[in-house]
Amino acid sequence: MTDHTRIALASRPQGAPTLENFRLETAALRDPGPGEVLVRVLWLSLDPYMRGRMDDVKSYAGKVELGDTMEGGGVGEVVASNSKHYAPGDIVVGRTGWASHAVLSETEMRKVDPELAPISTALGVLGMPGHTAWVGLNDILAAQEGETIVVSAATGAVGSLVGQLAKRKNMKVIGVAGGAEKCAYAVEHLGYEACIDHRSPDLAAELKALTPGGVDCYYENVGGATLEAVLPLMNDFSRIAICGMIAWYSGKGLEDAMRLPKMWRSILVKRMRVQGFIIFDHNDRFAPFAREVGPLVKSGEIHYRESVADGLENAPAAFLELLGGGNFGKQLVKVADKS
Amino acid sequence: MTDHTRIALASRPQGAPTLENFRLETAALRDPGPGEVLVRVLWLSLDPYMRGRMDDVKSYAGKVELGDTMEGGGVGEVVASNSKHYAPGDIVVGRTGWASHAVLSETEMRKVDPELAPISTALGVLGMPGHTAWVGLNDILAAQEGETIVVSAATGAVGSLVGQLAKRKNMKVIGVAGGAEKCAYAVEHLGYEACIDHRSPDLAAELKALTPGGVDCYYENVGGATLEAVLPLMNDFSRIAICGMIAWYSGKGLEDAMRLPKMWRSILVKRMRVQGFIIFDHNDRFAPFAREVGPLVKSGEIHYRESVADGLENAPAAFLELLGGGNFGKQLVKVADKS
Repeated sequence: MTDHTRIALASRPQGAPTLENFRLETAALRDPGPGEVLVRVLWLSLDPYMRGRMDDVKSYAGKVELGDTMEGGGVGEVVASNSKHYAPGDIVVGRTGWASHAVLSETEMRKVDPELAPISTALGVLGMPGHTAWVGLNDILAAQEGETIVVSAATGAVGSLVGQLAKRKNMKVIGVAGGAEKCAYAVEHLGYEACIDHRSPDLAAELKALTPGGVDCYYENVGGATLEAVLPLMNDFSRIAICGMIAWYSGKGLEDAMRLPKMWRSILVKRMRVQGFIIFDHNDRFAPFAREVGPLVKSGEIHYRESVADGLENAPAAFLELLGGGNFGKQLVKVADKS
Repeated sequence: MTDHTRIALASRPQGAPTLENFRLETAALRDPGPGEVLVRVLWLSLDPYMRGRMDDVKSYAGKVELGDTMEGGGVGEVVASNSKHYAPGDIVVGRTGWASHAVLSETEMRKVDPELAPISTALGVLGMPGHTAWVGLNDILAAQEGETIVVSAATGAVGSLVGQLAKRKNMKVIGVAGGAEKCAYAVEHLGYEACIDHRSPDLAAELKALTPGGVDCYYENVGGATLEAVLPLMNDFSRIAICGMIAWYSGKGLEDAMRLPKMWRSILVKRMRVQGFIIFDHNDRFAPFAREVGPLVKSGEIHYRESVADGLENAPAAFLELLGGGNFGKQLVKVADKS
């Protein structure tokens, strides 16, 4: 047994989480068993889906129990190994949790190639968010050349790759993001033809003006006002991929939202397809994603941006900022330097 | 030019339609042009989708203009032909409208085989409703053997075939219908394992008790309380085919309906697929439908039931009854006897 530092779930949030819901502590960590390795965490990923794990409700990936380590993906280096596939010094990515060290099974981790790109990208553009962007665009939306796509959270870890991949498909790509700085970045670096601030009082009108041919694909990360602005613009046979709904994660705005019959009627009359997806169901699509996007990141053709909090102890504050849209680019926590 | 009798749209309904919205009249009918035939209508089909055509809003199939003939499918006999493909005496099905006679183009009609089944079935189990049932079950829901399906409007023109085809796939088939008589019929004749009255105050609890393994497919014809009862029971990777939403067609219940975020969250967390469809987009799937279902109707393996109003003048009242769920089986109007 060794000690490790971790962030535990101290209490469940009522609505928006606060710092009091988290607890930094030292705790014992079991030794790795057969086929397992001990990993020293270097980078931790913060992602909106983690908000759902904090609630005491059935979730697709199980909730975090009170007192347990907050869940999450991390990149680390192997320091001890009972697996013939991994050796000390290997850089790996897996579900380390919010912690300084983790025990991972060889079946639930993979090696990271430090030659391809900075290892932190295994948590972003070349990791779960990038994989999510690629599956949503290609498999769920079945996006086609020449179509118009709207991407909400356009500069987020997922949206920033959706935009660039859609542009590479010769689609018309419109973004919605939080604030002028993000919108400018979306247009300058991510291939968006235009990007609208979701706080604009004229969101619906601006979006309509930008999509005279209507919208064929909506990559949904937020719900809320953005969804209500996009819905009337959806074309016949259009598709919505529901990847997230961050605007509604903490119960805010639920009472303002439209009634179901309006959406139901749109789906019928426009023959729409609305599909939810969770990337953990699509592991078989990681390899083709990595084959396509890896070289594009290495060559610099795909742009990515990281927002880094320094030190595990700062993970809770960075997570709260992420939920509020305060981050700019893939949100990471630098836990330790490489040895 | 010949005279014909027809039902015209006299005024647009405010909410539920009334008899005053329709007008029986005699009007001139143009002669058939090249490639067209003159048809004497024998049977007229009444279908819920017609409600949408009465409104002054953009609809997938265009609205009926004030003073124009109400739209609808009919079976008739050719009395004069300018098409080399059709001869007087042929029995045909096409979009005749609510009228005693119609001019149809050879490209928008097809022959009916009187040897296969009674010609009125070309408007029901072997026509548009049957085609709708088959496409929704096979193409939209991609229903699989062993899965559980819930069918609303279980004994309607569409639902009655969905139930039987699902049973033939060895699915667990649960119906929701209006009243004890329809429910008994669903179980006795249509292959439903059970059928619940949608007016039951315990609809949600009854449905839950009948589906201990959850629901994989929901064939949606009604919306309203039935949808709200089914939604919590939907399994991961389940599908909803939106074929109709008759409970909400006239604006009733819209304010009682759930807010969108609840549905949105379910679609995401359960990785559901919700798809609307309209049968007129699926003409290429008529032939395989007819090849499968035609012989089953001829052999008596597929059961169907008709509700017949006698005389074109009674079409409006029969249509209002249909919208209220008062019909039992495919609603037809007998316009004339075969010559």
